Amino acid sequence: MSSSLFHTEDHFTAGDVIRDIVIGMSDGLTVPFALAAGLSGAFMSSRIVITAGLAEIAAGAIAMGLGGFLAARGDAEHYANEYRREEMETTAVPEIEAQEVTEIFSAYGITPEESASTVCALRRNPREWVNFMMRFELGLERPNPARARNSALTIGASYVIGGVIPLLPYMCLPAPQHALPWSVAVTLLALLLFGYAKGRFTGAKALRSACQTMCIGGLAAAAAFLLARAIR
Amino acid sequence: MSSSLFHTEDHFTAGDVIRDIVIGMSDGLTVPFALAAGLSGAFMSSRIVITAGLAEIAAGAIAMGLGGFLAARGDAEHYANEYRREEMETTAVPEIEAQEVTEIFSAYGITPEESASTVCALRRNPREWVNFMMRFELGLERPNPARARNSALTIGASYVIGGVIPLLPYMCLPAPQHALPWSVAVTLLALLLFGYAKGRFTGAKALRSACQTMCIGGLAAAAAFLLARAIR
Repeated sequence: MSSSLFHTEDHFTAGDVIRDIVIGMSDGLTVPFALAAGLSGAFMSSRIVITAGLAEIAAGAIAMGLGGFLAARGDAEHYANEYRREEMETTAVPEIEAQEVTEIFSAYGITPEESASTVCALRRNPREWVNFMMRFELGLERPNPARARNSALTIGASYVIGGVIPLLPYMCLPAPQHALPWSVAVTLLALLLFGYAKGRFTGAKALRSACQTMCIGGLAAAAAFLLARAIR
Repeated sequence: MSSSLFHTEDHFTAGDVIRDIVIGMSDGLTVPFALAAGLSGAFMSSRIVITAGLAEIAAGAIAMGLGGFLAARGDAEHYANEYRREEMETTAVPEIEAQEVTEIFSAYGITPEESASTVCALRRNPREWVNFMMRFELGLERPNPARARNSALTIGASYVIGGVIPLLPYMCLPAPQHALPWSVAVTLLALLLFGYAKGRFTGAKALRSACQTMCIGGLAAAAAFLLARAIR
């Protein structure tokens, strides 16, 4: 999911936490649900469905949580590396860096003469100059230092919460054929509510987001169901 | 995974395709592997492991591929909406928009007098002014129109390719206990190679990336294995 989805001017600006919840819960509500539906089409025991479902939730939550951790830490390291490099360049080759600023402005039809006083003002303050290059040359935002750990926990927990919902009917009913319709109903409802909330928070059309989210889950589950049935 | 990981100045600039391959294959190599390992600790038949693994691959590839499709299309729509809004604002309230540009520069220690000629030059060319606001006020990049479809196919295909690797030993050996060590060996090797390539392409330290990627897969698989064994 791209961060630019959540970057609006005066709409509700969804923070990193909401983005991580969306990442974790989108997959958490979809994949264990689809897997459980698929296996209930191939096996006669809810035990297999529950065991596979919980194993998938553990694997998915860890893989996605740690993946989020490494992605956030990678972003922070990338920012720090680029920051050092820009700092070095503005000190070592200020003329070349100043020329780069002039070229950034030229791309928007601003002549070197017109941008000269702006470029000159930047050069007066090297720290702000580096910050300017980070944002306007490289398009990088300064990352939050606590983000990597929080991101891992939020994504992992959202995956677990989303993943347990479709398994609940299998835990209550011994025959997976009987649990399947309940699992489908409960999960499609959860996907609908989640898609609606996601649409509201990200500034998209909420009803359309609700339908799309439900369709993805339904399609993934239908494919897994038919595949598992075909090869059982 | 954040796009900023892949935005560097003169290093190799990994494109959207590589980013999508990383997204799909990271999860594809990890989750089906961990699920298969988990189920081989709980059941005596490779058939259950293969059925669950293939159902997971189908569900995961569709969920992630369609998720990528919607994310990319959401980005494109968000860009188009914000573009229209900026276009309207620069036409309807140009003084307020010009003031916003002055404030952007002020945040970097540039006085209104110093930025005046740059702001004035922008106002001369409304189309470039809107482009400038998109990038420098909102931090948005113009999306590629074919991205949504390509993204879905690349993520989905990468998930399938990554997911089939750990299942191959189960397809060759009837007892999952015998297939498990082969699956672990083949997949850890694949994770190592994939992590190395990912590190090379994204400008991170390749060997560290290789070890991290392998550890995530191993941890997720160990957790799924222990959980499935405990509840079988």
